[in-house]
Amino acid sequence: MKIIRVDMTNLKVSYQDVPNYYNDYAGRGLIAKIMNDEVDPKCDPLGPENKLILAPGMFCGTTLVNTSRISIGCKGPLTNTIKESNVGGTIGSALGKHAIKAIIFEGQPLKKGPFIFHLSKEGKAEIIEAPEVGGLRTYEFARKIFSRYGEDNSLLCIGPAGENLMKIASIQSTDVDKNPCRAAGRGGVGAAMGSKHIKGIVVEHRADSLQEFADKSLFDAAAKRFAKAVMEHPFSSQLLPALGTAGLVGPVNAMGAFPSLNARIGVFEKWERISGEKLREIIEARKGNPTHLGCSQCIIHCSNQYLDRDGSYLTGSLEYETIWAMGAMTGIDDLDIIAQLDRLSDEIGVDTMSMGVAIAVAMDAGYRSFGDTRFALEVLEEVANNTEMGNIMGDGPLSVGRHFKNPRVPVVKGQSIAAYDPRAMQGNAVTYATSPMGADHTAGNVIGEYMSGRLDPLKPDGQVDASKNAQIAMAAVDSTGLCLFASFALLSPEGAQSMLDLIKAKTGKIVDENTLGLIGIETLRLERAFNRAAGFTAKDDRLPEFFYREPLPPHNTVVLIKDEDLAKALEF
Amino acid sequence: MKIIRVDMTNLKVSYQDVPNYYNDYAGRGLIAKIMNDEVDPKCDPLGPENKLILAPGMFCGTTLVNTSRISIGCKGPLTNTIKESNVGGTIGSALGKHAIKAIIFEGQPLKKGPFIFHLSKEGKAEIIEAPEVGGLRTYEFARKIFSRYGEDNSLLCIGPAGENLMKIASIQSTDVDKNPCRAAGRGGVGAAMGSKHIKGIVVEHRADSLQEFADKSLFDAAAKRFAKAVMEHPFSSQLLPALGTAGLVGPVNAMGAFPSLNARIGVFEKWERISGEKLREIIEARKGNPTHLGCSQCIIHCSNQYLDRDGSYLTGSLEYETIWAMGAMTGIDDLDIIAQLDRLSDEIGVDTMSMGVAIAVAMDAGYRSFGDTRFALEVLEEVANNTEMGNIMGDGPLSVGRHFKNPRVPVVKGQSIAAYDPRAMQGNAVTYATSPMGADHTAGNVIGEYMSGRLDPLKPDGQVDASKNAQIAMAAVDSTGLCLFASFALLSPEGAQSMLDLIKAKTGKIVDENTLGLIGIETLRLERAFNRAAGFTAKDDRLPEFFYREPLPPHNTVVLIKDEDLAKALEF
Repeated sequence: MKIIRVDMTNLKVSYQDVPNYYNDYAGRGLIAKIMNDEVDPKCDPLGPENKLILAPGMFCGTTLVNTSRISIGCKGPLTNTIKESNVGGTIGSALGKHAIKAIIFEGQPLKKGPFIFHLSKEGKAEIIEAPEVGGLRTYEFARKIFSRYGEDNSLLCIGPAGENLMKIASIQSTDVDKNPCRAAGRGGVGAAMGSKHIKGIVVEHRADSLQEFADKSLFDAAAKRFAKAVMEHPFSSQLLPALGTAGLVGPVNAMGAFPSLNARIGVFEKWERISGEKLREIIEARKGNPTHLGCSQCIIHCSNQYLDRDGSYLTGSLEYETIWAMGAMTGIDDLDIIAQLDRLSDEIGVDTMSMGVAIAVAMDAGYRSFGDTRFALEVLEEVANNTEMGNIMGDGPLSVGRHFKNPRVPVVKGQSIAAYDPRAMQGNAVTYATSPMGADHTAGNVIGEYMSGRLDPLKPDGQVDASKNAQIAMAAVDSTGLCLFASFALLSPEGAQSMLDLIKAKTGKIVDENTLGLIGIETLRLERAFNRAAGFTAKDDRLPEFFYREPLPPHNTVVLIKDEDLAKALEF
Repeated sequence: MKIIRVDMTNLKVSYQDVPNYYNDYAGRGLIAKIMNDEVDPKCDPLGPENKLILAPGMFCGTTLVNTSRISIGCKGPLTNTIKESNVGGTIGSALGKHAIKAIIFEGQPLKKGPFIFHLSKEGKAEIIEAPEVGGLRTYEFARKIFSRYGEDNSLLCIGPAGENLMKIASIQSTDVDKNPCRAAGRGGVGAAMGSKHIKGIVVEHRADSLQEFADKSLFDAAAKRFAKAVMEHPFSSQLLPALGTAGLVGPVNAMGAFPSLNARIGVFEKWERISGEKLREIIEARKGNPTHLGCSQCIIHCSNQYLDRDGSYLTGSLEYETIWAMGAMTGIDDLDIIAQLDRLSDEIGVDTMSMGVAIAVAMDAGYRSFGDTRFALEVLEEVANNTEMGNIMGDGPLSVGRHFKNPRVPVVKGQSIAAYDPRAMQGNAVTYATSPMGADHTAGNVIGEYMSGRLDPLKPDGQVDASKNAQIAMAAVDSTGLCLFASFALLSPEGAQSMLDLIKAKTGKIVDENTLGLIGIETLRLERAFNRAAGFTAKDDRLPEFFYREPLPPHNTVVLIKDEDLAKALEF
């Protein structure tokens, strides 16, 4: 394994050996480690001292199923915390095959650029000045890249939002069909990339993998067992292929936990118009693909391809969180409009969730009405055009709330919550409040406990532990390169044992049943250490005031977790 | 860290990178790993397929106290099992400073040699033909080496016994004063070295250490805390510096567990003549050093220098196990004779324990009387001279028992027990029977449980667990490079926490309170896997018949551990 270091100040690229004390770290864990080792926590996220780190998960580049996830890390421009944003597509697997443990972009060029980083099949790494691609939207940029470098490449890129350093800028990742439709959306990682004047990161595919194994035959056997466990979990093998993540609209709405109209109510009246069932109906009627292979190595196929009324491709994988943010939160109940907003977000390079919530906060302030589709579409163009209003919106919900004097801003550490209202899922309140990432459902979603009936979502009992366990598990999964949706296999004894065998066979690491949990705990410890050094205290681990004060219909509950219990959530 | 591979067939030396999947392994654990990866378990221990591996512990070459232990491994010529023999002196620390993870000697030369392996200060590794040193005893050989290469070297070497492939041949290690008086005694590792025609392994010292650390400041702080914990344990800080290991003669004899006259009785009538107190009295009277610094980095000073009646140096660190084997077992109650037998064993290069027990078995068979000092001294010369009787004796107790038709041979897997009778310390019965090393007190001595009163040594209850825990702990300690006597510090909460911090600071490994135990379990698993593949089964994990049948005075107990309970000892 090697680390590639890209000195953007001097535009030099070098390979370096991986210190053996990074052996236990990969993906999100490795980012936490490198950020603590190399980056001043008090630095300006958009300055030369910040670093942008790509780290494929431990199993990327192997034959294990669903291992195309790459972690992208930096000090987050949106959150000012340490930030890891995890994305699928094909680049994680591609970099894994190159046996690259991390790419670290550091410094800042004097030249405007922008620049493209390219890694050839043979491992030649270059940084190339490419002024002609400056300002391009992502789909056009991707077309140019694939025509220049060939189809056999993976791409990460930013759109105009990232180039203009907007705080909700995403990094887009191309899927199996070469569309830059998958996003490392959270925390403003796109602005960090933009601050280094990098427009695109291109990795040519290798046919063979350079990955080494401590025990190849054990790995192959365990990988087979793990794949079987993935296909035996009903969520991965039934709900996701059938309805995609949008399958959650119905159940979460039924629980009264679907934050609607800027989280004024927990059900969306027109939920059936934006449900997973409706989505599938539309896609099938237009002969699109409701069960699409989006990422390398995927056996779940939660993705979809949404076609417009003329049957042309409009956007890729319209997801639950996007449907919520652009739909329920803004009061827009038309999947065609939501799909357009999704495509525009991908094109311009912004996080659909933060963008939708920013729009909702503006509507909630009375600037426009809920359900104003024209406003929503206009906002995106303002962001693309870097106008004054575009900058206010592109810096996210907190910036919008400040501008319009609306204190009802559903964010923690500057980052918006996701499609689970913390008042109706008290465990997710704990995760939003205490995750080192700011509010983030992928940092420890407790929904599984509620859907299985193991925990009452409305009462405070047991929520801190549930969140803590989920946060540890997610920090570990985010270090493996495994897709969250394949990680349900870890809940079965066969899946859990296969994972231990996989870690041992890949790394030679001495393992027991605590191994994965320890990786998670270590990761969270490092992330919290970075945040503390950046100046964050326990008082930052709180939800906005209105979640404690304003009961959420229909259950009319508020967040009931006490501050002293929140403080226990990530005590190790 | 590097591995040095020495191809003895072609007399070629090469450096190689350490695969990252060896990161979790060092010392004994690394030997278990490499043996499983590279050596056919069914090979002839004295043939070209066997390998001789030196592996310093994890902390060798650092500033941590008492870290001069090196593991020497191979398929054991005496036991036919996997074999790790652990020795102090200065070479572990010296190789550690070179950042050498292992030296692997493989193949077999056509030339008789013998050969010397030399590693220069600058890291130049050579294999040198040196016919002029063939047949030398170890003290003379050491003098030649230090005069040829300078004082600033550490030496491992074999005597005539190893050159003549005797199964109880040791590898001798030079102490701080350049005397080759410390032995990797068990399992016949000296014969494995002899089979590769290597007479000496010489390592020149570096002033600075090439060791790298994941976190140097954490390491330094934890090393200080660990040293404090060592000095706070009464065994390390009081008994050992005062009386050396010989301080155990009194207590173990009092427990009726001191196997005497070939284990016919559990007390030695004349124990006061060979006790730690007597030893100190003699050494002090002759102005010798009873509290000697034997090994690099030692803060305990359990060693001693024994002078003859004229006040000249006779032997170094006369130890409890030697005093027992050469004294109580053979009925010799004269420390001057025992010291001579110790010096001769070191000179000729045989394990004092196996040698003493071999003599005792011959006496017990009626070939000579117990207490016959002349016979004992003659036997050593026969071994040195490679006579027919010398070969019978030099192949160890089992060979002697077979020759003299004496079934009372206190060995397991060919290797003699130590100075704790399994009938009066039932936990040590479990360790002797089940350790992958054959009978071996350093593989898991339960004496601490008896001396502290936590466990009744005569009853079977709790013994399997006690042995299992001790075996796991020792397998782990033998991977750290830490001296067994400094490992008592691990029993205190401060010492245990310091050790976790040390592992983390050295390797970057993600740790918790199970980490050290896991290293031990992994090591034992690998060792048992090797043995099973070599053909060993549960039926080999048994003590000799007479321990189950013949009650040991004064308690008149037999071994009470049932076969099915033995089978549980190393179930993981």
